Amino acid sequence: MTANEVFETTFPVRYAETDQMGIAHHASYVVWMEEGRSQYMRAKGIAYEEIEREGRFLAVADLGVRYVAPARYGDAVTVRTWIGELRSRTVTFGYEVLHATSRSLLATGQVKLVWIDRGGRVTKMPDWVRLAIGGG
Amino acid sequence: MTANEVFETTFPVRYAETDQMGIAHHASYVVWMEEGRSQYMRAKGIAYEEIEREGRFLAVADLGVRYVAPARYGDAVTVRTWIGELRSRTVTFGYEVLHATSRSLLATGQVKLVWIDRGGRVTKMPDWVRLAIGGG
Amino acid sequence: MTANEVFETTFPVRYAETDQMGIAHHASYVVWMEEGRSQYMRAKGIAYEEIEREGRFLAVADLGVRYVAPARYGDAVTVRTWIGELRSRTVTFGYEVLHATSRSLLATGQVKLVWIDRGGRVTKMPDWVRLAIGGG
Amino acid sequence: MTANEVFETTFPVRYAETDQMGIAHHASYVVWMEEGRSQYMRAKGIAYEEIEREGRFLAVADLGVRYVAPARYGDAVTVRTWIGELRSRTVTFGYEVLHATSRSLLATGQVKLVWIDRGGRVTKMPDWVRLAIGGG
Repeated sequence: MTANEVFETTFPVRYAETDQMGIAHHASYVVWMEEGRSQYMRAKGIAYEEIEREGRFLAVADLGVRYVAPARYGDAVTVRTWIGELRSRTVTFGYEVLHATSRSLLATGQVKLVWIDRGGRVTKMPDWVRLAIGGG
Repeated sequence: MTANEVFETTFPVRYAETDQMGIAHHASYVVWMEEGRSQYMRAKGIAYEEIEREGRFLAVADLGVRYVAPARYGDAVTVRTWIGELRSRTVTFGYEVLHATSRSLLATGQVKLVWIDRGGRVTKMPDWVRLAIGGG
Repeated sequence: MTANEVFETTFPVRYAETDQMGIAHHASYVVWMEEGRSQYMRAKGIAYEEIEREGRFLAVADLGVRYVAPARYGDAVTVRTWIGELRSRTVTFGYEVLHATSRSLLATGQVKLVWIDRGGRVTKMPDWVRLAIGGG
Repeated sequence: MTANEVFETTFPVRYAETDQMGIAHHASYVVWMEEGRSQYMRAKGIAYEEIEREGRFLAVADLGVRYVAPARYGDAVTVRTWIGELRSRTVTFGYEVLHATSRSLLATGQVKLVWIDRGGRVTKMPDWVRLAIGGG
């Protein structure tokens, strides 16, 4: 089951995100991808903070990033986010990070998340989230 | 009421903490001072995570840092932490950040924290914490 | 000499910026204020990365933040930035961080920056920056 | 060509590294693994900052992390670092992150780095680094 819509969110590279190599530090992309995920869910009418209030959490199980070209302070980046795979207990997001103005590719990534409850036990995706995401 | 013991903790500057100016970013010092505070409390036999499990939290109310000289990747820093002022509802920590080997001063700071409960209401310091810190 | 224009920039609180107290970590505000400063300068036609390419840098000399109310994931924050004091070798920015929708005050802050050259020596603000900022 | 020595470095989870799920944020592991890499190189007599002064840089090309169990504030973590693959233009580090006291596995990861020069062009590993690492 796959939901193929792609959501984009754009923001400037922060000075604090650079390192002494003069480029955005590679851990920043992990935060940007998470921000892409947040915006994806908001665009679908899902407030993730609401899910947590119900005692469901999305824990990161697996993360991969391939870095193609550096992002720099002064640039804005566009994060493209989509759902790569939607299962009852996991969801995998796919990402591209682009230079916002040139649209050149800076990085690709994927993050697999597992639904857990307050006790950290693997659980199922809430039904209302599945409906909102559009998984059949 | 003042507790004048000073605790020191030393750790390397992380690459991720640098910025494109080639020095540790100024927000890193705020994290280092918090780490000094954690070590101070552990040295006093206080596990802050235990306090939180009891439903008491230390919220930062006020923060000041004066930057004297830069810290660089490859350096280790020593954070010196002490209690500047201990009151029933607030505690103010004082800090010095030193270059670990030369002991030259890199920054000074102070952070005022307020005791709050789960609802975010101002409350009193737990008695066992006061005893552990040594406030009379 | 004071330039009293206030610039505002608004962005969501990132999940990575929260801590286990369930609120945005206090060091995040330092990064947000820096981001306000970046947007202030861009609004004035100043690309800070261009200043650095000329061998001038703004090093943080002093930082103060007063925390009034917590920011949470799911909120957006508005950073209001202005120049508090403009001198030949230093510039002090003032800040307010607001909850973006309610406009309630979350924090106030100020950051004093010193102009330095590549060697870390204190120097004067570039003339073109002074003109762009509007200091007489 | 493979160098199979494993270096370990241990440090506490920082409060700032937690998120509102009550565990260390997944991007923190990326920083911890980088810190493991720094300590690995120091243990081999290589100061990475010295490499950068010579105009050689290690840019991250590829990153993968698998998260097994959460790390919490109050825990210390041990990062185990080794060289998985050493080639003339790339080096791949392997990692395990353990709970420092129980030695239970929290995460595994690998990071592939590419040698670049000041202009961002792919280049060869400096000979003295190869000798220090022990690649034949």
